[in-house]
Amino acid sequence: MRLTVYLAGQIHDNWRQEIKNKSKDLPLDFVGPMEDHDRSDNIGEEILGEQPTPIYKDEAASKFNNLRTRILLEKSDVVIALFGEKYKQWNSAADAASAIALNKPLILIRSKELHHPLKELSEKAQVTVENVDQAIQSLSYIFES
Amino acid sequence: MRLTVYLAGQIHDNWRQEIKNKSKDLPLDFVGPMEDHDRSDNIGEEILGEQPTPIYKDEAASKFNNLRTRILLEKSDVVIALFGEKYKQWNSAADAASAIALNKPLILIRSKELHHPLKELSEKAQVTVENVDQAIQSLSYIFES
Amino acid sequence: MRLTVYLAGQIHDNWRQEIKNKSKDLPLDFVGPMEDHDRSDNIGEEILGEQPTPIYKDEAASKFNNLRTRILLEKSDVVIALFGEKYKQWNSAADAASAIALNKPLILIRSKELHHPLKELSEKAQVTVENVDQAIQSLSYIFES
Amino acid sequence: MRLTVYLAGQIHDNWRQEIKNKSKDLPLDFVGPMEDHDRSDNIGEEILGEQPTPIYKDEAASKFNNLRTRILLEKSDVVIALFGEKYKQWNSAADAASAIALNKPLILIRSKELHHPLKELSEKAQVTVENVDQAIQSLSYIFES
Amino acid sequence: MRLTVYLAGQIHDNWRQEIKNKSKDLPLDFVGPMEDHDRSDNIGEEILGEQPTPIYKDEAASKFNNLRTRILLEKSDVVIALFGEKYKQWNSAADAASAIALNKPLILIRSKELHHPLKELSEKAQVTVENVDQAIQSLSYIFES
Amino acid sequence: MRLTVYLAGQIHDNWRQEIKNKSKDLPLDFVGPMEDHDRSDNIGEEILGEQPTPIYKDEAASKFNNLRTRILLEKSDVVIALFGEKYKQWNSAADAASAIALNKPLILIRSKELHHPLKELSEKAQVTVENVDQAIQSLSYIFES
Amino acid sequence: MRLTVYLAGQIHDNWRQEIKNKSKDLPLDFVGPMEDHDRSDNIGEEILGEQPTPIYKDEAASKFNNLRTRILLEKSDVVIALFGEKYKQWNSAADAASAIALNKPLILIRSKELHHPLKELSEKAQVTVENVDQAIQSLSYIFES
Amino acid sequence: MRLTVYLAGQIHDNWRQEIKNKSKDLPLDFVGPMEDHDRSDNIGEEILGEQPTPIYKDEAASKFNNLRTRILLEKSDVVIALFGEKYKQWNSAADAASAIALNKPLILIRSKELHHPLKELSEKAQVTVENVDQAIQSLSYIFES
Repeated sequence: MRLTVYLAGQIHDNWRQEIKNKSKDLPLDFVGPMEDHDRSDNIGEEILGEQPTPIYKDEAASKFNNLRTRILLEKSDVVIALFGEKYKQWNSAADAASAIALNKPLILIRSKELHHPLKELSEKAQVTVENVDQAIQSLSYIFES
Repeated sequence: MRLTVYLAGQIHDNWRQEIKNKSKDLPLDFVGPMEDHDRSDNIGEEILGEQPTPIYKDEAASKFNNLRTRILLEKSDVVIALFGEKYKQWNSAADAASAIALNKPLILIRSKELHHPLKELSEKAQVTVENVDQAIQSLSYIFES
Repeated sequence: MRLTVYLAGQIHDNWRQEIKNKSKDLPLDFVGPMEDHDRSDNIGEEILGEQPTPIYKDEAASKFNNLRTRILLEKSDVVIALFGEKYKQWNSAADAASAIALNKPLILIRSKELHHPLKELSEKAQVTVENVDQAIQSLSYIFES
Repeated sequence: MRLTVYLAGQIHDNWRQEIKNKSKDLPLDFVGPMEDHDRSDNIGEEILGEQPTPIYKDEAASKFNNLRTRILLEKSDVVIALFGEKYKQWNSAADAASAIALNKPLILIRSKELHHPLKELSEKAQVTVENVDQAIQSLSYIFES
Repeated sequence: MRLTVYLAGQIHDNWRQEIKNKSKDLPLDFVGPMEDHDRSDNIGEEILGEQPTPIYKDEAASKFNNLRTRILLEKSDVVIALFGEKYKQWNSAADAASAIALNKPLILIRSKELHHPLKELSEKAQVTVENVDQAIQSLSYIFES
Repeated sequence: MRLTVYLAGQIHDNWRQEIKNKSKDLPLDFVGPMEDHDRSDNIGEEILGEQPTPIYKDEAASKFNNLRTRILLEKSDVVIALFGEKYKQWNSAADAASAIALNKPLILIRSKELHHPLKELSEKAQVTVENVDQAIQSLSYIFES
Repeated sequence: MRLTVYLAGQIHDNWRQEIKNKSKDLPLDFVGPMEDHDRSDNIGEEILGEQPTPIYKDEAASKFNNLRTRILLEKSDVVIALFGEKYKQWNSAADAASAIALNKPLILIRSKELHHPLKELSEKAQVTVENVDQAIQSLSYIFES
Repeated sequence: MRLTVYLAGQIHDNWRQEIKNKSKDLPLDFVGPMEDHDRSDNIGEEILGEQPTPIYKDEAASKFNNLRTRILLEKSDVVIALFGEKYKQWNSAADAASAIALNKPLILIRSKELHHPLKELSEKAQVTVENVDQAIQSLSYIFES
């Protein structure tokens, strides 16, 4: 049995690569959003051509990003969402809540400092941990006998 | 026909009261989260007694807040979520995404300045507007013949 | 027991009023799309302000029209969709298919001349009839004992 | 990871073959309706024998066409629907709406000229593009990392 | 609290009236199929006009009968299905199974003599009883405190 | 793409084997109920030991038969149900209706003589045919291009 | 807005009456299982007549008890389950888990001493409290503004 | 066709190994909870670090145990739950009810002595048997032809 893991959350450091490297011995397949930030912002204009204002540019881009997210989230068995110190990360929160609503168990990674603003989301997650290693332990536990 | 509207989002100004006042002539019933910010933070310890650390205090509070949200969201026909300039508002994003996942149409209110960080959430909303008056116009349109 | 009926389909003649008049003795409540065609086309700009191109104007309008449709369709027990000779009526077809997918029984009204292009949609409907009187008979039959 | 794509829409030119040719390097499997127009119209009588009138002939054919569509749509991860200038294409609209209701993301292809009659359907689609190449770019984006 | 009860099953004797008479003191509302057998057989031609063969006549009638059943079954909280000695009663079995699949509890009434052909359906029912009085006792028990 | 077909209906002749033989060239896998009639009747006592009365014997057997049906029906893409002249076949009707309720397309096979008692069930089926060959043609059509 | 509360759990003391008395000022309607223990055990034989063994007596009774539970649980907005020191209370655990699976929020009442055997169930509950007063506070919080 | 079986229930003897050994010839894959009792109790502190009280330790552990259960239960086609004489086994009852609510057929194993406290849960199970051998016969029956 293999599990597919959707890696939601911020795309500003290499935490996804760290998870992949550290879990090489587990039967896991990883999917997630476009991690190239510029490409994620520009994909709407790249496909549809120039848009009249930055708001329309964002609207166009978000359609293609959400197309990707919907399809890959649907294919997943479990979702990991990592919140960092910077940026608003509302899309991370939305992806996390989408996962919950689709009945996909959510593993939330956040530093202790972020516990207050994330408290209701954390309560909805199946588990909340503080770092990548703990998230991997959570996944590893599923396969132990 | 009356509609029940869940007012998600920040609880730091009186935007909910403004909506209620301005829509008095529409057949709408409003529900929403606890708006007394301190009470929302303390409800866990109020019911369960003192908790060992601030994190546990938050965990306890969030359980009762989420109990309230789940029941009232389930009773709603449509959700309005307002995002402001301040605070992380991750719970607002999560409530908005829960509404979407429950197939409740979402009316998102955000200022033009917030369009970039909210772009994917905005794309999932049924409509995105910039102020309370436009949100009320959206609801009013449902009842016109 | 009262039933709520969503009247989908073209908004270019007064067939909805005809149904309402002829079924006054049945315990039915009727809902449906905005029937004022210009208002339906302009509602996006009316609420959000001028849009950069006709396509964006249509996109804005359709969001508010779909907000209305989603909420009212969800409240309905049965859907009547009438197709006429003129116009493409793709939105009528989409509303009809949405009703089917939501497990709301569909009563399709179409003239005999339209049977070929509507054949697959007709097959998905619960009943297909040729005029408003037959649709009312279908609803009346539900209440007979 | 491979994705299955249902190609809904008109069967009067070779747009499906064009998509297949141009996306050969992507891990995609394609399904769709019967593309032989005469066979699609005659399948009811071919299996059940002669029917008493053209309407009954159509009703019989549509049952077998819908059997095919339901099974193949259920197997799909994403749906592309192409609308052309000619014909009423109500079945295309119905297939598109069925896909939406089944929570399958819809990629709508239509020329700019068709934007007005398709505006509500376009708003329900995950993305709307104007040609086959843009639809393939949308699918390609899902697999990029 | 009132409950709505769908009375499925044969329409060849007055068992429905017997249930209604004997349960007058319970807060129950009853719905069910058309009980006038001829009208049930003829409703298709009555609305749509003469059909080319008896099979088409039956197909037309069944569409209107199923329209009625779907709407009323959806409105029900519990279903009673009575099987008698005569007739094939396949529609009763189908209505009973529809109720089960819609997660409506089924009370099956059948004489002891019919236990063998009904054994798999009986196992799917919530309760199986042998007469109308026992079915009423089952409903009465729900309201006792 | 392979499809799994559940063969519901009577177990008194070899129609299942006929379907399997005649469809050898199609990518189909077949499942269905226990076809050994005595074993189907006795499976309850075989596993649980002697039961106090024939009714309890039947109740025990039906639990194991329904365990089998539920699991195999859930694995299926499409259901064929054949009704014959003899026996009450209420379980066939129930299996057919379960398939419909699970949104599995139903292919109903019945001789012309049986059209009246099966009319409502036939209307719920995706297609109704008169013999095994027509059912195979229906399946074959799904795979044609 | 009124809420319906299902009171699951042991029926060996008067905790249900205590909740009703103490929450008289809240807009709550209460439902729950048969609280007369003997009647709950005997309802099967009362309706169906004497059964051959105590196991069959229990099987018969449980069918009518589950009929009641299913209907009333479906009507509820929130479930309270109280676990006591005595008895196995497996049915309480099953009712609690049914509520969770139906997406009804669960308020679990258990003394501190029972925390270990209830830990997984407690984690699935929306809130866990230690006494009736805390459960009422949880419900009261939903209505505060 | 292979089936995945979730083995719910007590983890205090080797019944799971017995099932695996005795069913080697059947196309079955087995999953289930962590069977190392100490590890199951300690997993929360192992991943998250020391917790302030035993209740918090249990709460932490249960989150990871439920993460595992949810994912593996979702992957299963059928669930076996074994109840023994000792311990409260409320989690077994909850897992059994979760399976039922997810529409996974439940095979309940319990000794005759336990019939009374398990009567309502037994009634919800698809089959109830008394030992491991009978459970394996139930599974074997699914594959016989």
